[in-house]
Amino acid sequence: MVRISERLAALRAAMKEHQIDAWIVPSSDPHQSEYVAEHWTGRAWASGFSGSAGTLVVLGEQAGLWTDGRYFIQAEQELQGTGVQLMREGNAGVPTMGEWLQAQLESGSTIGFDGKTMSLAAVRRLEKSFGNRSFVINSDRDLLEGIWTDRPSLPAEKVFLHEDHYAGRTREQKFEQVRKAMAAKGADHLLISSLDDIAWLFNLRGSDIECNPVFLAYTIFSKDQVQLYINDARIEPVALQALKASNVVMRSYDAIAADLGKLAGGSTIQLDPATTSRWLIESLPESVQIIEGASPSNLMKAVKNEVEIASMKHCHRRDGVAIVRFMRWLEGAIPTRAEDEVSLDEKLEGFRAESPEFKGPSFPTIAGYGPNGAICHYRAEKATCLTVEPRGLLLVDSGGQYPDGTTDITRTFACGDMTDEEKRDYTLVLKSHINLAKARFKKGARGIQLDMMTRMPLWELGMDFNHGTGHGVGYFLNVHEGPQSVSPRCLDVPLKPGMLITNEPGMYRAGKHGIRIENIMLVTEDMENEFGQFYKLEPLTLAPIDTKPLVMDLLTGEEVEWLNQYHAKVLKELSGVLDGDDLVWLKEATQAI
Amino acid sequence: MVRISERLAALRAAMKEHQIDAWIVPSSDPHQSEYVAEHWTGRAWASGFSGSAGTLVVLGEQAGLWTDGRYFIQAEQELQGTGVQLMREGNAGVPTMGEWLQAQLESGSTIGFDGKTMSLAAVRRLEKSFGNRSFVINSDRDLLEGIWTDRPSLPAEKVFLHEDHYAGRTREQKFEQVRKAMAAKGADHLLISSLDDIAWLFNLRGSDIECNPVFLAYTIFSKDQVQLYINDARIEPVALQALKASNVVMRSYDAIAADLGKLAGGSTIQLDPATTSRWLIESLPESVQIIEGASPSNLMKAVKNEVEIASMKHCHRRDGVAIVRFMRWLEGAIPTRAEDEVSLDEKLEGFRAESPEFKGPSFPTIAGYGPNGAICHYRAEKATCLTVEPRGLLLVDSGGQYPDGTTDITRTFACGDMTDEEKRDYTLVLKSHINLAKARFKKGARGIQLDMMTRMPLWELGMDFNHGTGHGVGYFLNVHEGPQSVSPRCLDVPLKPGMLITNEPGMYRAGKHGIRIENIMLVTEDMENEFGQFYKLEPLTLAPIDTKPLVMDLLTGEEVEWLNQYHAKVLKELSGVLDGDDLVWLKEATQAI
Repeated sequence: MVRISERLAALRAAMKEHQIDAWIVPSSDPHQSEYVAEHWTGRAWASGFSGSAGTLVVLGEQAGLWTDGRYFIQAEQELQGTGVQLMREGNAGVPTMGEWLQAQLESGSTIGFDGKTMSLAAVRRLEKSFGNRSFVINSDRDLLEGIWTDRPSLPAEKVFLHEDHYAGRTREQKFEQVRKAMAAKGADHLLISSLDDIAWLFNLRGSDIECNPVFLAYTIFSKDQVQLYINDARIEPVALQALKASNVVMRSYDAIAADLGKLAGGSTIQLDPATTSRWLIESLPESVQIIEGASPSNLMKAVKNEVEIASMKHCHRRDGVAIVRFMRWLEGAIPTRAEDEVSLDEKLEGFRAESPEFKGPSFPTIAGYGPNGAICHYRAEKATCLTVEPRGLLLVDSGGQYPDGTTDITRTFACGDMTDEEKRDYTLVLKSHINLAKARFKKGARGIQLDMMTRMPLWELGMDFNHGTGHGVGYFLNVHEGPQSVSPRCLDVPLKPGMLITNEPGMYRAGKHGIRIENIMLVTEDMENEFGQFYKLEPLTLAPIDTKPLVMDLLTGEEVEWLNQYHAKVLKELSGVLDGDDLVWLKEATQAI
Repeated sequence: MVRISERLAALRAAMKEHQIDAWIVPSSDPHQSEYVAEHWTGRAWASGFSGSAGTLVVLGEQAGLWTDGRYFIQAEQELQGTGVQLMREGNAGVPTMGEWLQAQLESGSTIGFDGKTMSLAAVRRLEKSFGNRSFVINSDRDLLEGIWTDRPSLPAEKVFLHEDHYAGRTREQKFEQVRKAMAAKGADHLLISSLDDIAWLFNLRGSDIECNPVFLAYTIFSKDQVQLYINDARIEPVALQALKASNVVMRSYDAIAADLGKLAGGSTIQLDPATTSRWLIESLPESVQIIEGASPSNLMKAVKNEVEIASMKHCHRRDGVAIVRFMRWLEGAIPTRAEDEVSLDEKLEGFRAESPEFKGPSFPTIAGYGPNGAICHYRAEKATCLTVEPRGLLLVDSGGQYPDGTTDITRTFACGDMTDEEKRDYTLVLKSHINLAKARFKKGARGIQLDMMTRMPLWELGMDFNHGTGHGVGYFLNVHEGPQSVSPRCLDVPLKPGMLITNEPGMYRAGKHGIRIENIMLVTEDMENEFGQFYKLEPLTLAPIDTKPLVMDLLTGEEVEWLNQYHAKVLKELSGVLDGDDLVWLKEATQAI
């Protein structure tokens, strides 16, 4: 607490020195990554609040931290005694950051932030939130530099090749596709800041961000060259050689702003306002014309090619083996009362690590027993976690990184006796899952429409879950990947064959239990007729869904049929790679109901 | 045809005189009305194409007309021999207007249109469609003036009071609510161009546009005055007196641009880019700051107050009586083979006109027998329409205007024997209708989510209909009213209690039959619990749904229950206002199945 006060005092002194009245520290990095390296955790350093989402605003006397419902309890604890006021986003009577700034500052005041950590779109939203008040923006420097003395340095992990036989397309093929899209938009240059787009485009991977196999870099495509901004000492020699063979021009990571500043006047540059920092925008010569839009790589990466699809299926068989072994072990371990949320996660990672291809988890496992299952972004800690008892429900959401794919699976397990409410809720979540899994949908349909299909059985009964139904998934890349998303947000991205989405409806009862059932699904073509082209979904995830909690009366014949067919598929796909007691167990677990 | 060539020649001469290389004639009026008065049908006058949607572009040598799928056949016929090329929007290989202009014109060419008929948003879309080409825009004049010698004059029908006991809120109460919303946005002035917003705000109605009880006007709200731009000779004395009592400043319709030009420098004005013409934008002094956004009246008008809701229920009983009498008559008339699509529409209007409150239809009736039912915007003509035979299906979509509400109802009738396909399609459309009618949905849900609920039973079977599920409805105003809409478009407008939507799924088989079943629904509050606040829908429309085509095997018990309950409600509500043979017929028609 004292440390936070000291840090805020140092920050305020720096603000005074630079005549800044309000300083904003968001949660992002210069690439607008969802998860960031330690170097970019300045908001946590300055406020004490360590959650993944939140924005700190420091004024001369006051400070406020805005975060959402997932983090209210954690933020309350961590902010205690820091003098930073918790602003519960969305709660009645809580001002938005813009409203608060309008109320606290006089017109003409200066609002500052590090221009590297705010995208063009974020700055626009900020300015819009000022209403008709006008403030001066100062985004020239990062005030934390100089006061955050033990700031972790920039990550510089090894960058390695993602071989073409995994990628399914060569670097050159991808470059050509990007250039075609640039030409269609009339763009002379294309700037890409998103780390996963860059990793995918160059067939490279790294490990700069926990669980995300990406590396810090920028790229500029021009008509006759491709420049990659990265410190090349980090690149494994074979990868560096491959890049040179593809005529990639290597530039230092720090050279990006200066190079943008040297673009020819009158030329056009395509960039994505959502991922391009204000700092890079400001470095462009005024006469360069900006064409706003997502990078073409974004959609190209989302629509998996045939090699990626075949590999993802392969990698899901491997992941399925680990999950089945874990499930069998869990069944035996629960009655011993010797396992807790942390130890079972270690065990699960151990089963995945039995495969030599395993590169690590694709996100920190969420293993929540009983009431902890109801905390959507729960992360168990050894000191405080729950022991799994032989009753109630256990939710385990986990995933692995492999060179041939990324997995993300949630199963909820019956640990023993269950309440009627637990059984009913579990059955309803499975109904929701199946409603999407067996959906047929029209070409052009977007995630919000699929989300509605999933959610409908719950709304019918006056129930709901407070998160989206699913997200895109990377290929040995970020487990959350755009541009598609299956959620109640109005996002105008039609689903296309080759896209992956997760199907993960849930139900959460605070203090009681949490349930979620998640498979990764592949969008594929279905019938075409006088009404148009239809698509359907194929589950890639291969692991039994616990049938013990099911209330059969709540399931329709079609739903039971879907479950039996899915289980038959799991058994068939894993029969060739499992044997002995594991196979016996799987046969039992996938029996038709 | 010759006339069109002469008109185009005259237009080209005017273009030459003013050094304009391309002239655009859209389908709109200066208020961006969906339907326009004769004065604004210049696109039809110059091209020959009379459909409700289409844009004409005239170059020195060529001319193109863009329209959508509803009008391909009609446009093809009407454009024959005119030299105007039909551009089938959305068809493969057909350039968009922007692409065509890019291909046909040299950079620096001048593109012209009447700045009154293009909104700020439309001009932005146009400019965006130019890609990286740059053209000069000339929107200073309407070239049709001077060459369209027999152009119909501006409408100047009587403007009359919509009494407070119908409106439920006084003018002053509405003004106060608008001012509060302006203050929240920091707007010194508010400009409204939408005719239905103006009619609603001033508790006035007119008849300048067929079926739409609106009148040509603009309004400017300022902090201390409200100016209404209208030729006041048109206003009935009692209405004029009421406006003066409400301190409304009367200004001539033509004075709007000059008055905007005189706004104080540095002041702010709120306006809607979608409904404000480029002409008005250009008339603003540069130092006036524009705050873009829908007028607050838009949402206020959409959320019906308790008086409007009670009146709508009343008016639906009256409309229901007319529909029931029509249905009974129809049942007897069909076997005579003496009625055609036009005569039955006249009969239907006659039944509505029996009520002294009837002010006219709310839109031109769509009465389509057999294959004509599959033409979504069909309008029967005496010379070409079909006689109704005692077999197959007849679709009738109609509505009435009353001082206490606007109605919009579609029923599809069994005329005699039906094919299995007709019966199955009819039953599936009813399933879709019921799926929405009995929906429970979460506060915050938008039309696209409700549309999905309606459409899901059809997608499941690989079927669909190519229009939205529904639209908002005015109150003695336009039958199509925003901002809400129930359609697959991503429109971020949450439904609120008090809003009206139509529920009108359909099924269309070209050359065979068309089916649509439509009720107006009121959004009301449902349960609130730990998962949030839920809403539901209450049908306002009161008329039997034909049960003869139903395939009972395709309906679930819940669906049958909904239909029986709806029919019981229809009988109960209309029992008090119907008697004799009509009541006997209704009892039969609403019998439980």
